[in-house]
Amino acid sequence: MDVNEFREFGKAAVDFVADYLENIRDKDVLPSVHPGYLHKSLPEVLPEQPEGWRDVMRDMEKFILPGITHWQSPNFHAYFPTACSYPAIVGELLTSGFGIVGFNWICSPACTELEVIVMDWLGKLLDLPEEFLNCHDGPGGGVIQGSASESILIAALAAREQTVRRLREENTEMSESDIRGRLIAYSSDQSNSAVEKAGILSAMPMRLLGTDSKCALRGETLRQAIEQDLAMGNIPSICIATLGTTGTCAFDNIEEIGQVCREYNVWLHIDAAYAGAAFCCPEYRPLMKGVELAESFNFNVHKWMMVNFDCCAMWLKNADLLVQAFNVDRIYLQHRFQGQSKAPDYRHWQISLGRRFRALKLWITLRTVGAEGIRRHIRHHVHLAKHFAALIAADERFEVIGEATMGLVCFRIRGECSATKKLLEKITERKKIYMIPGNVHGRIVIRFAICGMNPQLSDMDFAFQEIQHVLNEVHIPIEEISDKIRNHFSKKIRITASEERIQ
Amino acid sequence: MDVNEFREFGKAAVDFVADYLENIRDKDVLPSVHPGYLHKSLPEVLPEQPEGWRDVMRDMEKFILPGITHWQSPNFHAYFPTACSYPAIVGELLTSGFGIVGFNWICSPACTELEVIVMDWLGKLLDLPEEFLNCHDGPGGGVIQGSASESILIAALAAREQTVRRLREENTEMSESDIRGRLIAYSSDQSNSAVEKAGILSAMPMRLLGTDSKCALRGETLRQAIEQDLAMGNIPSICIATLGTTGTCAFDNIEEIGQVCREYNVWLHIDAAYAGAAFCCPEYRPLMKGVELAESFNFNVHKWMMVNFDCCAMWLKNADLLVQAFNVDRIYLQHRFQGQSKAPDYRHWQISLGRRFRALKLWITLRTVGAEGIRRHIRHHVHLAKHFAALIAADERFEVIGEATMGLVCFRIRGECSATKKLLEKITERKKIYMIPGNVHGRIVIRFAICGMNPQLSDMDFAFQEIQHVLNEVHIPIEEISDKIRNHFSKKIRITASEERIQ
Repeated sequence: MDVNEFREFGKAAVDFVADYLENIRDKDVLPSVHPGYLHKSLPEVLPEQPEGWRDVMRDMEKFILPGITHWQSPNFHAYFPTACSYPAIVGELLTSGFGIVGFNWICSPACTELEVIVMDWLGKLLDLPEEFLNCHDGPGGGVIQGSASESILIAALAAREQTVRRLREENTEMSESDIRGRLIAYSSDQSNSAVEKAGILSAMPMRLLGTDSKCALRGETLRQAIEQDLAMGNIPSICIATLGTTGTCAFDNIEEIGQVCREYNVWLHIDAAYAGAAFCCPEYRPLMKGVELAESFNFNVHKWMMVNFDCCAMWLKNADLLVQAFNVDRIYLQHRFQGQSKAPDYRHWQISLGRRFRALKLWITLRTVGAEGIRRHIRHHVHLAKHFAALIAADERFEVIGEATMGLVCFRIRGECSATKKLLEKITERKKIYMIPGNVHGRIVIRFAICGMNPQLSDMDFAFQEIQHVLNEVHIPIEEISDKIRNHFSKKIRITASEERIQ
Repeated sequence: MDVNEFREFGKAAVDFVADYLENIRDKDVLPSVHPGYLHKSLPEVLPEQPEGWRDVMRDMEKFILPGITHWQSPNFHAYFPTACSYPAIVGELLTSGFGIVGFNWICSPACTELEVIVMDWLGKLLDLPEEFLNCHDGPGGGVIQGSASESILIAALAAREQTVRRLREENTEMSESDIRGRLIAYSSDQSNSAVEKAGILSAMPMRLLGTDSKCALRGETLRQAIEQDLAMGNIPSICIATLGTTGTCAFDNIEEIGQVCREYNVWLHIDAAYAGAAFCCPEYRPLMKGVELAESFNFNVHKWMMVNFDCCAMWLKNADLLVQAFNVDRIYLQHRFQGQSKAPDYRHWQISLGRRFRALKLWITLRTVGAEGIRRHIRHHVHLAKHFAALIAADERFEVIGEATMGLVCFRIRGECSATKKLLEKITERKKIYMIPGNVHGRIVIRFAICGMNPQLSDMDFAFQEIQHVLNEVHIPIEEISDKIRNHFSKKIRITASEERIQ
């Protein structure tokens, strides 16, 4: 492909993306394909001769597009949002165009230095403690990781190595493998699967502790677990707390947990994958009270802050602990500017050697949106969730679990779980909206997350009407709900919706 | 930013990338900035109000571009190439536009299924054993990872967990932490730093074994190491062999190593990060003889196969071993098509939960280039390396170390290492070409790798002239070289260059 073809292909692709995102409401959010569908449409071996880009684009529309689940549709309410914005898409394009791999400073000074700068921008936007920032006169700093899973694993590995080092210094009687065999990690039973996986990968048993009625991990629970472990001769290494759990967007009590961690010399990592973005709004910062007690913190810019996947922001209070744990130097990786504080060799801060120039899309997005625009985005999602929760709450057949938190509403049909399960199955079969189940204190709930690139109030109404419609259609037997209520609630709800809209 | 602005911005970015890559030879390959340069040019906090994309692009050209090391310049000869091609850039753009995260099948069936298909295309292109392919009727399969570092770590973790499980089944006397404390891994002292790092991260001591005169790990060396370890009560778990080492592009003897691994029940992983791409050409396949003895294999499509970073192809003979080691299931991750063979839940094959739709750029690139085009690309690089090696070899002041292998030439000034070191320093200071040092059997060499998006024979001549020029200018004292030779060699070389060009 020559450069002129690239100009044509690239611009056609820009238009394709613009059209796709503009008209995304026209498509069912879930695809209508069955496993193995694509296998039948594509050849079994790579063609010998090159094919034209127009043929490839045609096949993409014909074969790939029907197999896409439309995460950027406002009718996508599953998992948590995956960010997508126009400036970030262009940022990715420019990153690919530069085609650089910035594993150390000399590999592209701008790649490292822009990351240092935008991570400080972000840290200040969230009002994180100064010690986490690159500009602070200490060993702390921020770095972009690929995912929260990576950040959590990195924290676990760094904590593990630090604990081993500390124990070896303190207690010469234990061998290194003795120490490693007794290490233990903590999190709550509400934390993301990535936390449990980090336990497996780091070979540290991850104790998933019980939570309070609001699904939050409390300090006393952690303290009891640590005391139990110490009594058995185990060595507590790290606690991974969550701000905004995947199940219900619950917030662990960081202040309590942090005090306990400090007392027992346990590394506190905070996974704020989804909800961390909300701390750009001062009104949500009380939820991260105690953050200064953490050793490390991550949130996914690529979830709720308009920058496309992958872009996970991670800060450490002492990045030297990471570098000590991960540093493997080779002659071909050395350069004469090594070890300067404004130019960290980020390869020592992550699992992989290679790294993409992700700071570029972050910088472009932050500048073209502005701090005020980001806060508006967050508040808009929260408002949409409240609107949807009000619709649900006004229908007596449903109960909202807890309350709408950030952009997440959990609800269920009153009574047996089987009804909620059946409702969700039927809704999913129709493919108009996509939600997923959750489990709160043993009861099945439906998680409704505000997602998509540009969700509006009318999309919330659409979702609620779809839920109503299915519930009416499938005649799920619900003893608690009289026929009268079932027939008359929709008018009432419509009025509530309009009132919300005026707010 | 609205959709119309996106169309403008996106197309301007396409033109920027086209112009950048077209005119990349006009720029010094290395930037002229000093650590901390960017800090002075950008504000310390994110602006409150949005800025126009034209302002951001202007700042990008003014502040970011001067800090870029131009990996896609043909004058970049450091490390190994990082692939970049026009179709892959558009592929990345489309991937960002879809904005999906394909961690399981239902998250976007096309994302998983296209990956299954293109990984088979690639596997067949390289003539890998059938057992590695998704289409084979067994538990094997291919997956796209972010980097070779990740693939190696994943192999190490899977091997570790498998060894622990096997030992626990075989020998109930040992506790799990006893077993873990005795695990050991092997590689050669020529393997990439990522291998040593995988040892640290997986908490398995990584023994870096000595190599033969060609820098290759041999079976006997491995056998002796394993025997030593067994005698000490250690438990050999994995050997990571390299096809195309970073230092000199050496090839471990897979056939010998594989036999030893089989004998001692050791997982053999092959890291063919750079050279793996060359196996699309039948003439290089003898170098991977014995590949069927490996449990897993990776090569970086994003190094030498025209697909932009990140895109590391990894195959496993038994992916179930990975899934067993990594599987963490949660209610919100379940869906009704789970466990079907054509639709693997790739999240269990990798470290992170989230994953980008990387198969799209791979598919677009493979189709628009074609199998024959890829082979031509590989052979062209090899030809350029031979051409450059001939230029170097014809200059008596230099010695080529070993011979040009794939797209890599290692050379040095005859005599003391200090001269080679000084030459490289001076060349790097001038920023016209970028090469890095290597260390072969204790001697400093200069690594010259064929890199960049579109290197030509004339670029090799340019590099050689630059090397000559610096060597003449800096008057490095070299006892072995008479003044006469120093003054007359350039004419001779020019002739050689032209002869090569006719081939």
